[in-house]
Amino acid sequence: MKHTISVLVENKSGVLARISGLFSARGYNIDSLAVGPTEDPDTSRMTIVVGGDEDVLEQVTKQLNKLPDTISVKDFLSAEFVERDLMLIRAKASKKERPEIMEIAGIFRAKVVDVAQDSVMIEVTGSESKIEAFIELMMPYGIKEMARTGIIALERGGK
Amino acid sequence: MKHTISVLVENKSGVLARISGLFSARGYNIDSLAVGPTEDPDTSRMTIVVGGDEDVLEQVTKQLNKLPDTISVKDFLSAEFVERDLMLIRAKASKKERPEIMEIAGIFRAKVVDVAQDSVMIEVTGSESKIEAFIELMMPYGIKEMARTGIIALERGGK
Repeated sequence: MKHTISVLVENKSGVLARISGLFSARGYNIDSLAVGPTEDPDTSRMTIVVGGDEDVLEQVTKQLNKLPDTISVKDFLSAEFVERDLMLIRAKASKKERPEIMEIAGIFRAKVVDVAQDSVMIEVTGSESKIEAFIELMMPYGIKEMARTGIIALERGGK
Repeated sequence: MKHTISVLVENKSGVLARISGLFSARGYNIDSLAVGPTEDPDTSRMTIVVGGDEDVLEQVTKQLNKLPDTISVKDFLSAEFVERDLMLIRAKASKKERPEIMEIAGIFRAKVVDVAQDSVMIEVTGSESKIEAFIELMMPYGIKEMARTGIIALERGGK
């Protein structure tokens, strides 16, 4: 079972190392992690996607809560939330294939952001499953390079 | 001076802890970090944005290169690249303010992804400066919550 954990932390040196250390000390491999600024310059928000055993993950969450750098921890498994992932992908594309690829990009509301002789770079935003569907469609052309941010998430309804 | 460093690493437990430890051991605060899957399931790509002194950062880059988990390191300061950041932001919005906010979102090609009684959630993708311009425009309404992925980047031209 995959969990999306949103952790609000103090924005200072060493916090990321401590938090990622917490996971790796238990042999947990993080699927994705995104950390960036928030509305408050003194805090950062980390969104961590991790799979694994419920019990052990509960322990990790408890330990996260105990860290002095942690302001709050939310496990999005139970709550209704909006999740978004962002990807830049460079697919091989001959001149002949380019229109096909641009059509697929259009269907996914993705944007072509760079064109080279034999490839195109596309920006896609969406849920994890949308991003993965897009990758699958690019595979027959050949994927030269890609970068993904990992998921960020906010709760619906704004409680 | 801000650097955008793209590190291709092996996808295994502990790598993130080791890399973030490398920065924090030198008192470097990471502005943003995004790590996610790549075209190869055995590797992950980390995009790290960090500010600071050139010389020390050069040392960190050298050390990154020496880590057994590191496959390649690219410092995007010199290369021409496409950078993208993704944000979910919940701004306060009365019924009266909602149309104004939706108009601003339209100008930024941002998407309204959730509407509540007194707030809206918006998804914005773009360069760091675009995201920051959008935040500034939301400030007068009041920002309730936000999450950012941090930057990801790929080189133009696909060499």
